[in-house]
Amino acid sequence: MRAVDIIIKKRDGLELTREEIEFFVRGMVSGEIPDYQVAAWAMAVMLRGMTERETTDLTLAMAHSGEVLDLSQVVPIAVDKHSTGGVGDKTTLVVEPTVAACGLPVGKMSGRGLGFSGGTIDKMESIRGFRAALSVEEFLHNLKTYGIVLSAQSANLAPADGILYALRDVTGTVPSIPLIASSIMSKKIAAGAQAIVLDVKVGRGAFMRTLEEARRLAEMMVAIGKLSGRRTIALLSDMNQPLGRAVGNALEVKEAIDTLHNQGPEDFVEHCLVVASYMLVLGGKAKDLESARLMAEAALQDGRAWDKFRTLVIAQGGDVSQVDDPERLPQAQFVETVTAPRRGYLSQIDAQQVGETSLLLGAGRTKKGDPIDHAVGVLVLHKVGDYVEEGQPLFVVHANRREHLAVARERLLAACQWSEVAVDPLPLFYGVIGELPEN
Amino acid sequence: MRAVDIIIKKRDGLELTREEIEFFVRGMVSGEIPDYQVAAWAMAVMLRGMTERETTDLTLAMAHSGEVLDLSQVVPIAVDKHSTGGVGDKTTLVVEPTVAACGLPVGKMSGRGLGFSGGTIDKMESIRGFRAALSVEEFLHNLKTYGIVLSAQSANLAPADGILYALRDVTGTVPSIPLIASSIMSKKIAAGAQAIVLDVKVGRGAFMRTLEEARRLAEMMVAIGKLSGRRTIALLSDMNQPLGRAVGNALEVKEAIDTLHNQGPEDFVEHCLVVASYMLVLGGKAKDLESARLMAEAALQDGRAWDKFRTLVIAQGGDVSQVDDPERLPQAQFVETVTAPRRGYLSQIDAQQVGETSLLLGAGRTKKGDPIDHAVGVLVLHKVGDYVEEGQPLFVVHANRREHLAVARERLLAACQWSEVAVDPLPLFYGVIGELPEN
Repeated sequence: MRAVDIIIKKRDGLELTREEIEFFVRGMVSGEIPDYQVAAWAMAVMLRGMTERETTDLTLAMAHSGEVLDLSQVVPIAVDKHSTGGVGDKTTLVVEPTVAACGLPVGKMSGRGLGFSGGTIDKMESIRGFRAALSVEEFLHNLKTYGIVLSAQSANLAPADGILYALRDVTGTVPSIPLIASSIMSKKIAAGAQAIVLDVKVGRGAFMRTLEEARRLAEMMVAIGKLSGRRTIALLSDMNQPLGRAVGNALEVKEAIDTLHNQGPEDFVEHCLVVASYMLVLGGKAKDLESARLMAEAALQDGRAWDKFRTLVIAQGGDVSQVDDPERLPQAQFVETVTAPRRGYLSQIDAQQVGETSLLLGAGRTKKGDPIDHAVGVLVLHKVGDYVEEGQPLFVVHANRREHLAVARERLLAACQWSEVAVDPLPLFYGVIGELPEN
Repeated sequence: MRAVDIIIKKRDGLELTREEIEFFVRGMVSGEIPDYQVAAWAMAVMLRGMTERETTDLTLAMAHSGEVLDLSQVVPIAVDKHSTGGVGDKTTLVVEPTVAACGLPVGKMSGRGLGFSGGTIDKMESIRGFRAALSVEEFLHNLKTYGIVLSAQSANLAPADGILYALRDVTGTVPSIPLIASSIMSKKIAAGAQAIVLDVKVGRGAFMRTLEEARRLAEMMVAIGKLSGRRTIALLSDMNQPLGRAVGNALEVKEAIDTLHNQGPEDFVEHCLVVASYMLVLGGKAKDLESARLMAEAALQDGRAWDKFRTLVIAQGGDVSQVDDPERLPQAQFVETVTAPRRGYLSQIDAQQVGETSLLLGAGRTKKGDPIDHAVGVLVLHKVGDYVEEGQPLFVVHANRREHLAVARERLLAACQWSEVAVDPLPLFYGVIGELPEN
């Protein structure tokens, strides 16, 4: 078998065999297949596509290119969730303790953020001392002991995905549905997931801009799940406007804490309850979505979810006094309210613009390894559909450099569009792909 | 400007600007744009194509990526020819001295062969002492002094093409019309050509298997010529069966010598006269094809073309006694005639099979730098359409290893197809692309 023949086959739009895909992934990791061949192949995949079968084979080959965790000794069934990334998406911080509090242990390996949609690990690192770099042994120990763990991805999970992703980023081959789907699913499978709830974001602040693209990605991932024997459900959720109110690391942690105290923003609470419900059903803890939702609501209301969150923070060395009193989380030096320049119905609050403002303030990173400022960010006080009077507060900017305030204000106002006539609120979800098991 | 944006633009099927193409070629040569980005771009070009304008810009950018020869001080107009490569194609060895003998000086930089279609330089190196590695100064000196020179390509001509070609070879991006066309034309332009006769081979033994592909390549190269101000004509010529009789280096030199002595095979003589005629018209030496042909025929018949060939050999250090007495050229140890296993009309003599047999005997190389055996090869005694009796000689195999004889015999017989009913001979040419100047 020769790499160039596999490239040519894909270039000509033919279906690769499992053996060919495994040969290619092995060669990619061993270095026998050089970067330039991987790059040409990725472009051929980008332009010619891959079937569900090929994409599943690619996913499994990448998942098995490094260590594959076996969580079966530790949990009855390993349930995971994954979001394709959105502005203000702090769902994991609420959903994980909620589900764990319902008696379904969850261990999650999460990424650091790149671009304006920050990573879960970055958010948690707003808490002083929180340690995300766990060894596999610590990960398993915490999962077994506390029923909850949240760690940065260990270097040796799906190394093929790391190599391929780095190349895709610089060769114009990022937006390929089979490559995105296999990247996400290979990491989940390597991390031991047996059941996966995928939160596929769609809209202005998401990687998938149209519902059609998002649906194709969701369907591909659900197909991979099915073909590889993992229970998989994909939710299509809105990312035209930010999720919840807070955008920025410590601000989002605070919002998660508020939510765990039953004081979260309505849209975010609802989003978390839906995601948690699907996890509980997929994990076999609830027989259907209705009973799952009741379980999740109860865990939030009676403080068990909040307790699990505290347990998580303590178990990983975080300063629990900061979450008990969120005022002690990193605070920005300059806090300024941006008010409405006119009255009317909000018809748009562009999530991408809000995300980029937060990036400008220092809350995100544009390249790997950039430092981030945990304190800064934006509070978005209204939702699309709200009626706002002139002069009413719209945003609160948290900045550590004074000169950022004016730029942020201008950008945030530019993110808004107004209507004279009433505007419907945006839906939270556009659909669900996949089938629930019969418990 | 960023390389990745140029890749993305081409990936999406958009037309690149001249500035973008120049930026990309510059980065490729300087090393600022790494191999993997060039590879992804090449695959995008392969699958999305390029307009004539883009391909011309790519050609000129590659031509100007290194030294560009200026022959205007040495010759009135620099005429060049290029063949896309065929089995038994020793045309340059006859055409160059013929045209030079008509008073139109020709200096040619030629490649070494790869695969079964050997290179002109390899053929000339059958002659002991023939030196192809000339400096630019020597090249210009010989062209001025003798009106004829034939050299291997200097390392510094179109280095971008060298880089791109090496990558294309291993990334499945060889058969892209814009990339093939710009590769050929960039080297011709860098070598100083102002007028170019392209011999685009089509058929079983050629890179272009179908007339449609060959025509597209020819049209693209003629368009590049037009847009870059070079007089360009492309001939579409047959390569389903070998050209002439001889395949293999010294055997082809001997056939070229026979032709220069008016004893060449009919098809090859005709092919040479046509190519020479177009060169003479393009070079402004003859007013039309008819008078050009008369000039070329005269130069062949009265021995002036032969004299020029001797001059070429002597000027570049070759042992002229070997061409005066071709029996002194390298001779193979084993010479065996392959006879017809049946009677009938020859309906096919597969040029690729004959070429591969010659490669097997050692006449070619499968990778750069492989040594070649100048003595070995095949004589093809018949043409498609000939009626042959059982037992009549079909081929003569020249081998230096006895065990090659049986394999060669089997392959050569497998290259033939037979018909009970009369078969038309194959045409020499399928068409001409481009317009002649009015002299």
